[in-house]
Amino acid sequence: MSITVVGTVAFDDVVSPFGKIANGLGGSATHFSVAASFFTTVKLVAVVGGDFPREHIDFFKSRKIDLEGLKVIPDGKTFKWVGSYGDDLNDAKTLETQLNVIANFKPEIPETYKNNNVLFLANIDPDQQIRVIQNAGKPGLIALDTMNLWLDIKKDAVIKAIKMVDLVTINEYEVRQLTGCHNMVDAAGMIRQMGPKIVVIKRGGYGALMFYQDQVFSAPAMPLKQIYDPTGAGDSFAGGMVGYLDLCGEVNLKTLKTAVICGSVMASFNVEKFSCERLKEINRDDIIARFKVFEDLVVFDGLKY
Amino acid sequence: MSITVVGTVAFDDVVSPFGKIANGLGGSATHFSVAASFFTTVKLVAVVGGDFPREHIDFFKSRKIDLEGLKVIPDGKTFKWVGSYGDDLNDAKTLETQLNVIANFKPEIPETYKNNNVLFLANIDPDQQIRVIQNAGKPGLIALDTMNLWLDIKKDAVIKAIKMVDLVTINEYEVRQLTGCHNMVDAAGMIRQMGPKIVVIKRGGYGALMFYQDQVFSAPAMPLKQIYDPTGAGDSFAGGMVGYLDLCGEVNLKTLKTAVICGSVMASFNVEKFSCERLKEINRDDIIARFKVFEDLVVFDGLKY
Repeated sequence: MSITVVGTVAFDDVVSPFGKIANGLGGSATHFSVAASFFTTVKLVAVVGGDFPREHIDFFKSRKIDLEGLKVIPDGKTFKWVGSYGDDLNDAKTLETQLNVIANFKPEIPETYKNNNVLFLANIDPDQQIRVIQNAGKPGLIALDTMNLWLDIKKDAVIKAIKMVDLVTINEYEVRQLTGCHNMVDAAGMIRQMGPKIVVIKRGGYGALMFYQDQVFSAPAMPLKQIYDPTGAGDSFAGGMVGYLDLCGEVNLKTLKTAVICGSVMASFNVEKFSCERLKEINRDDIIARFKVFEDLVVFDGLKY
Repeated sequence: MSITVVGTVAFDDVVSPFGKIANGLGGSATHFSVAASFFTTVKLVAVVGGDFPREHIDFFKSRKIDLEGLKVIPDGKTFKWVGSYGDDLNDAKTLETQLNVIANFKPEIPETYKNNNVLFLANIDPDQQIRVIQNAGKPGLIALDTMNLWLDIKKDAVIKAIKMVDLVTINEYEVRQLTGCHNMVDAAGMIRQMGPKIVVIKRGGYGALMFYQDQVFSAPAMPLKQIYDPTGAGDSFAGGMVGYLDLCGEVNLKTLKTAVICGSVMASFNVEKFSCERLKEINRDDIIARFKVFEDLVVFDGLKY
């Protein structure tokens, strides 16, 4: 099986309390694809400019990511994000956004991608997410991520897109923006009323909550000593989660819970270095070992009472 | 076995998004004692005024809480706290504090309490916590809680008290106040360097982290739809945790993990109504059932990878 992901590929300039990077490989579809590629085949739909270096293309290829849907505009410049983090690593501050080639990008899913099981709409303009869903045929699962910017300027379109999908990943602040509701149980209920069967609320360094049927699942975040760069943590989380779901080939409470932990594992690696640097170093055994760390982190003995 | 707890008994006026209460039974030692009393025998050391009603005394007695150490000052008034919560229920706003009888209180542990296994110093003036420890003999375990007020005005005394105990429960904001460190892993390390073997960081609606030996344990908070009153949640948490540890009679990684969940269970009940009202309704079976809910909340299947 395989996943089609539509989103951004970017150059990121990031400053965090632990250092900085210029022109790091970033973007929502990048972090998602790389994380998901450890679990399944990923087919990328995105756009870059002529300035996008060969080395990044080669890295995607080394992860067996299908690039037929990666459009290169030779005389264009790749989308750029400039941001910083203070001590509160859950709170990214956008300093500058240069849309460049994504300004007029209309994502097209190649015919060869259309029999994919899963469609993941990483963070892009919700009007484009809607257009993609309308042209996607009938994937087994459609999932979507968004961001505060779109809730500020195109909230109606975000809601329209959410109504069309099965699974939403969204962070806690965005949940409050979307629903106007402070309580996550109520807010998740409101989002599920819109349509999605599965709502996953990302809480940064506090982990994630997943709502499915009448169940709630609470995943921890890995307590890390050093978090170099939270950029893309949410996308890596979604990549690990949706990648594992695709690997399992079925969506139920058991696979969803384990998938959320896989997402947490991938996010925990992602933040350990800038850009995708940490994900370039790890392998299957590292993922299995860290999954075990998550088990030790939450598992407890029964009550003697 | 049994626990001696030293702390405050209070009247609380609380306003939260779900309603309000005037003169509710509150105080750090109250919430701790009531929660712990579901697991072990609790012996209370605190002071109240002549205005403290018979009905509260009877409630303590119904929970088999030993009141030999509860000093009543007939012509004094009971300590009073007035506070409110906005949408962010993790953030209590103190509107008024009337110290009354606790202003000059020097807690004395009755001789009959002195063979107790556990001494818990609930939130009171750290100078009094130190004095109590110096006069406590050799309890098997000494644990301490504190609050932001003392870190603002008596930080050196808080640190001196922390150096004398085995276990600290402290919330995330207070950890940053105490250590100046934003990262919880580093901060917990700094607190353990001061002396305590066990550090439990309370994160309100995000759960708790426990640091012991080279292990971290992450406990979730129960995702509740309605949180009437977070007042005393941290004290109930400590009561459930330390109460269960005393019931087990041994402190090791396994008992500590389960104890942290017992703390989370008791805190989750505490916030469901104002004051101690919810804890008046529950019994052993309710605790066992909610413990099961916490298992379902975090347990996940192994990786098929």
